[in-house]
Amino acid sequence: MSLIVKKFGGSSVADNDKLRNVAQVVTQSHAAGHQVVVVVSAQGDTTDDLLEKAAGLNPGASRREMDMLLVCGEQMSASLLAIAIEKLGFPVISLTGWQAGMQTDSNHSAARIKKIDPERVRVELDRHNIVVIAGFQGINKFGDVTTIGRGGSDTTAVAFAASLNAELCQIYTDVDGVYTADPRVVSTAKKLNEISFDEMLELASLGAQVLASRSVEMAKRLRVNLEVLSSFRNVPGTIVKEVVKMENMQVSGVARDNNVARIALVGLRDMPGVAAKIFSLLAQAKINVDIILQSIGRHDTKDISFTIAKNYLDEARSLLEEHRESLAYESLVVSDQISKVSAVGAGMVNNPGVASRMFEALASAGINIQMISTSEIKVSVLIDLNDSDRAVQVIHQEFFG
Amino acid sequence: MSLIVKKFGGSSVADNDKLRNVAQVVTQSHAAGHQVVVVVSAQGDTTDDLLEKAAGLNPGASRREMDMLLVCGEQMSASLLAIAIEKLGFPVISLTGWQAGMQTDSNHSAARIKKIDPERVRVELDRHNIVVIAGFQGINKFGDVTTIGRGGSDTTAVAFAASLNAELCQIYTDVDGVYTADPRVVSTAKKLNEISFDEMLELASLGAQVLASRSVEMAKRLRVNLEVLSSFRNVPGTIVKEVVKMENMQVSGVARDNNVARIALVGLRDMPGVAAKIFSLLAQAKINVDIILQSIGRHDTKDISFTIAKNYLDEARSLLEEHRESLAYESLVVSDQISKVSAVGAGMVNNPGVASRMFEALASAGINIQMISTSEIKVSVLIDLNDSDRAVQVIHQEFFG
Repeated sequence: MSLIVKKFGGSSVADNDKLRNVAQVVTQSHAAGHQVVVVVSAQGDTTDDLLEKAAGLNPGASRREMDMLLVCGEQMSASLLAIAIEKLGFPVISLTGWQAGMQTDSNHSAARIKKIDPERVRVELDRHNIVVIAGFQGINKFGDVTTIGRGGSDTTAVAFAASLNAELCQIYTDVDGVYTADPRVVSTAKKLNEISFDEMLELASLGAQVLASRSVEMAKRLRVNLEVLSSFRNVPGTIVKEVVKMENMQVSGVARDNNVARIALVGLRDMPGVAAKIFSLLAQAKINVDIILQSIGRHDTKDISFTIAKNYLDEARSLLEEHRESLAYESLVVSDQISKVSAVGAGMVNNPGVASRMFEALASAGINIQMISTSEIKVSVLIDLNDSDRAVQVIHQEFFG
Repeated sequence: MSLIVKKFGGSSVADNDKLRNVAQVVTQSHAAGHQVVVVVSAQGDTTDDLLEKAAGLNPGASRREMDMLLVCGEQMSASLLAIAIEKLGFPVISLTGWQAGMQTDSNHSAARIKKIDPERVRVELDRHNIVVIAGFQGINKFGDVTTIGRGGSDTTAVAFAASLNAELCQIYTDVDGVYTADPRVVSTAKKLNEISFDEMLELASLGAQVLASRSVEMAKRLRVNLEVLSSFRNVPGTIVKEVVKMENMQVSGVARDNNVARIALVGLRDMPGVAAKIFSLLAQAKINVDIILQSIGRHDTKDISFTIAKNYLDEARSLLEEHRESLAYESLVVSDQISKVSAVGAGMVNNPGVASRMFEALASAGINIQMISTSEIKVSVLIDLNDSDRAVQVIHQEFFG
């Protein structure tokens, strides 16, 4: 008998039919002799509906009150799932984050997990209960409820898996695993049986949207085995683990992120400290910068281009325009019609040819590369948004044939 | 500076406009220098929607899980109201039942309040916060959330008013006070400036539906002054208090309850213990019996008729049919096309003519009386449902002219 943590996202519990399906999946595992802990997100659009209601009253609502409001979404889906499981005749109990022992700091809306006190969960497991935990939430030392940020249910599941020393943490989604590329873009994409944490991290942060990258980082740090699998099809998914395969494929997947914008500052003075000034300004505003490119301009000037998430574009532009004098640039050029396409693979380290094969594939397809960024296990290129689908297809074709 | 507890029901907080209105009412009181504690119900149909969702999954859901689900209704309206109050620039904090210190027993869905530990509320009031408490809910000694039964928000407000030694507990509704009759039925009905607890109790339990009778009992026992007033019109309401006026009106109000069914057991043996058997059977099933009438039948038999709430009719009928042999009755006759109309007034005790004036008024209108029940401060008659409105009108006319 082993302990398994299962996490179901909002689309997997969106209505009564889907809740009944999840109840089936969960109780099959319990009937097979496992101890089962389930972490759920809010149903479908619940969180968005609550956000909209609150915004209609007060766009500047305190984060403390927003947390009080939003935690109800997960609490409702947890109790509804428990009610569906009761119907199947299995012993079950739902717990809020605070009841389950999820302790966080007081940074409302984006709290960090401080510690899990799993006593109540253990007691309920000892009573043979299936334990359903409301994801995404905790409690601070003052007894106020907190949320740990959107996508926090993945992280909740991993944190409980680590705290309870679970054998496996299963993340159920609407796809049945991690693919070599998005199957909606590349019809020949293949499901991976396993993938390393590092590769998964690159894929998660590159927009593969299967797992929140924070949860993958935590799973890697706390040595939690993850499986990504389908809520609706009873087939094995993709195992994410530390162990590196003996013979790595050079590339394990092609990812694509369209939530990208590029900013270019043209005609900066070519002297030390200029880049530092720009990026500390953005860091203070908590705007994450991804790819950075610096090139020599005309007449002893230089240009700096960088990419950020598209939704920060307006804020970043205003910030840079405000500081135009101190930064002393000639012009500011922005674009949000771009896409970042990446090849990821732990095998790249020992196979220096990956980047050039990727560039050649793009060149043969007539796709122009605007920027390049590489790490030990990935190569990313910035291209025109219109070329995005085609780029994913030709790169996938190059490596997966 | 005095402490006031204000309670707003589901229709008063049903949407963002109504929440904004409640925020105005609450902050005016805070601006006038009062310490303000607000108790809210769930918005509009939220509770019914959640009940329906759960029933669709599992009509036999455990009461523990139903409580986990339902408490979210009040928690959401509490945080939304706090968010609306923040918009007006006032200091505010919302608290769940357990955060506010509402401790109950473990009788899920109908828990009894054991004790309130108001420390957190006092701390927040000392910080000059308006404190918004989610009504209807508490926590048991195991750390599980409970609900105290529908209509429990009135009771929550009274309990906090007593615990905090509040000067006044204001119950806001969609009418502006207690009337001598339902203004929708009797256009000449008058608002009462004050009414005694005992009269209010009779009116509440007789279906006047302004205040939950449990909250009136508690207010009487704990000496909490109540005011029933309008959420939407800024006019004084009706004060409910212990003090009896020097010159009571004979009748202070006419109430009507259509949620009534009558069961008659015809041809019972005329021997001791028959009635005891019937009513202990119903008591065990927690079915409340209201009016009881026993009459001599033919051939040494007797008939027993009694009334119960309409929603228990099916259950009571099956129960009695199951025990037909041991109860040994000839036939069972039921009717749910009846109405109970009552005249209530503390002044009745010293004015024995009230009952006869009421019966005469009904007789003149050609309305047949099926059953009669009296207490020191009320006279109730059971009549045909079709005569209900007219009965209320002629009785009101008789006493209020």
